[in-house]
Amino acid sequence: MTVLIKDALVDGKIRDIFIRDGVIEEISPACTAPADRTVDGRDKIALPSFINGHTHAAMTLFRGYADDIPLKQWLEEKIWVLEAKLTEEDVYWGAKLACLEMIKNGITAFNDMYWHFEGTARATGEMGLRAVVSAVLIDLFDLKTMEEQIHRNVELFRKARQYAPAVTFALGPHAVYTVSPESLNWVREFSEENDVLIHMHLSETEEEQAFSKEKYGLSPVEFLEQRGLLSPRFVGCHGCWLDEKDCAILKRTGAKLVHNPVSNLKLSVGRLFPYRLVRDAAIPFCFGTDGCSSNNHLDLMETMKVASLLAKFSTGDPTFLSAKETFEHATKEAAAIFSLGDWEIKRGASTDIILINRNRPDLVPNFDIYSDMVYATNSSAVDTVICRGKVLMENRYVEGEEAILAHVRRLAREIVER
Amino acid sequence: MTVLIKDALVDGKIRDIFIRDGVIEEISPACTAPADRTVDGRDKIALPSFINGHTHAAMTLFRGYADDIPLKQWLEEKIWVLEAKLTEEDVYWGAKLACLEMIKNGITAFNDMYWHFEGTARATGEMGLRAVVSAVLIDLFDLKTMEEQIHRNVELFRKARQYAPAVTFALGPHAVYTVSPESLNWVREFSEENDVLIHMHLSETEEEQAFSKEKYGLSPVEFLEQRGLLSPRFVGCHGCWLDEKDCAILKRTGAKLVHNPVSNLKLSVGRLFPYRLVRDAAIPFCFGTDGCSSNNHLDLMETMKVASLLAKFSTGDPTFLSAKETFEHATKEAAAIFSLGDWEIKRGASTDIILINRNRPDLVPNFDIYSDMVYATNSSAVDTVICRGKVLMENRYVEGEEAILAHVRRLAREIVER
Repeated sequence: MTVLIKDALVDGKIRDIFIRDGVIEEISPACTAPADRTVDGRDKIALPSFINGHTHAAMTLFRGYADDIPLKQWLEEKIWVLEAKLTEEDVYWGAKLACLEMIKNGITAFNDMYWHFEGTARATGEMGLRAVVSAVLIDLFDLKTMEEQIHRNVELFRKARQYAPAVTFALGPHAVYTVSPESLNWVREFSEENDVLIHMHLSETEEEQAFSKEKYGLSPVEFLEQRGLLSPRFVGCHGCWLDEKDCAILKRTGAKLVHNPVSNLKLSVGRLFPYRLVRDAAIPFCFGTDGCSSNNHLDLMETMKVASLLAKFSTGDPTFLSAKETFEHATKEAAAIFSLGDWEIKRGASTDIILINRNRPDLVPNFDIYSDMVYATNSSAVDTVICRGKVLMENRYVEGEEAILAHVRRLAREIVER
Repeated sequence: MTVLIKDALVDGKIRDIFIRDGVIEEISPACTAPADRTVDGRDKIALPSFINGHTHAAMTLFRGYADDIPLKQWLEEKIWVLEAKLTEEDVYWGAKLACLEMIKNGITAFNDMYWHFEGTARATGEMGLRAVVSAVLIDLFDLKTMEEQIHRNVELFRKARQYAPAVTFALGPHAVYTVSPESLNWVREFSEENDVLIHMHLSETEEEQAFSKEKYGLSPVEFLEQRGLLSPRFVGCHGCWLDEKDCAILKRTGAKLVHNPVSNLKLSVGRLFPYRLVRDAAIPFCFGTDGCSSNNHLDLMETMKVASLLAKFSTGDPTFLSAKETFEHATKEAAAIFSLGDWEIKRGASTDIILINRNRPDLVPNFDIYSDMVYATNSSAVDTVICRGKVLMENRYVEGEEAILAHVRRLAREIVER
């Protein structure tokens, strides 16, 4: 499969980009090789696509169902009640909608944790995206549940191969307050033996910190280090309550972070991401949207802007987390965290590509594309999305989108009334 | 001029809306009156348009020109240098671009303060929007400059009538640290005599608070009250550093506030808008984008989301500033502040209307339109904009948009190199 992008702007110059089987083979002023598909790049800026570091894709099903109510009531009376009813087919459709939404917003890879792994994996494969998918591993400190969860994860690890290379299996121990130390021991061993990522909520709320201190006499990070879970394979999501000592541990162990600013604000978690501590410790981090119940938009451009603004405000430094740095955390730094290789538009890279339509008021004058991408425009500027060498969207149209919208609109109402 | 919107969703029901000379004359299941223009409302949700409570429209010219540098350097070496070169024609084109961008984002009215009043007024009229426009009144405590400024404002007040009813004149004393008490005395008198709004930056930064305390021994609000400036005609922008006493004064005097969350974060002003104090004092407030140098997007939907998120975070209450309340601050509360009448879709109102395209992933399932408008979708969901009884945008196309983009793209570069 070959794709030729004609006359797009690459680093300010008009270039053709030739992609063969997902690898950028040539970038030149005039590429003459014949291609299976040609994309008009005129007046469009080619950039690497976005990577969504943390989400629960199928929660699109619940978007807007129960906002503006207290957290406990929201979880216990609304979300858990609905989640208990979900089938694999529901999750498949919710994830299809999520994939469609992410494609529209220029996201081609995401890191997911949710129930009914197979539904998400199947949807991802069909929609042509890349994902790291983990089942939710929760045992609530019950050893029988632990055995079931371990068995399920071993089975999923084996099954996940059928979705490769689009889908990569990861372990998803939910958080220190929902997973027993015994399960975490198994997670550590399995992750080491099979070289799989560990995707975990980390230091999100004050309650989580208090739980860990009370039960283990340690912060969540200290506890996880003690159990040997922290390594370059560990991806901790949120991290709002990390302190300097925690950051030193993350640095020392090579663990990574995913920052979800919109979710943190919406759920009112009490503290902002410790931008300065994380930067001083040089901990790799990328951005996540979180799921549609706590955001409610799978849009990494919006997330970039909010993160960059909060970083400036909370450090008191309007130059902190500049547009270029912000863009890199959302693209190449994220790619490094999820082992996607070099995520730049250059020969030999297998970077996914988005084309940005310049003909819109929020991209005029367009003095600086990074500033415009982070501070000015929004995700509707994404015109074309190419993932793993395939054109998933052109002129903002994704094949089959009408059917997905119609199906999920009906399905979500049916689930609520089920 | 009559416009008929066919089969749009109004409060969840499919309805026709008939508009004559800007007034909603009929809302019914099937309107049979002939219209000059018919708009297809199928699969679209009719809502009141957004009102941008504070901006400097023509600063679109500088979008992305000088981000991520320290504030003082940004102002002194970049913005002021460029502003000194601006002509009325430049401001006209910058404001044209701003109007185009606001139309695309569903904004039909804005409150502006900038140089070359006539340029902004002319652009607003041509683009078909509504605006309250004020010149920047700055005298830097120089009485000769004061005389010039007063003369200029008296002249503009008279001239502004030619742009009515689209453009309303307001007085724009910049801030307590740039305007002398003598000028403020004149502003008070002129505002009272002619019933015009006063549009002023208020309690934006710590430096402003310190200046006022040192010079007058009073907070900016206390000082303005002492000079008699606070009344229902006073619109104070920002308000991040207001305390309880200030809020009590604003409440007592009937003054209003405009909250600009994106600008406040980007410029790192040190404090968040005091949501709880403002709500407890029941001070009317709406939202503003601020200008494109400190945001950089004239998008009130984005601003709504950021404001609602910050309110939840800073009050520690995830139910604070609900989606419905947020939407109302951006629409009907703003309309009350700027005397635009009832801003709801109902018979007899002269509300401007936007149509939201439901056929997009971020509006599925669409359980709650307010939640979706504030938390989920973005301004590209705005399909159609009707302002003062005229269709300014349909299918996201605004007549003449290509020429504005092309002209300003060239002009902005020319200004920088001038």
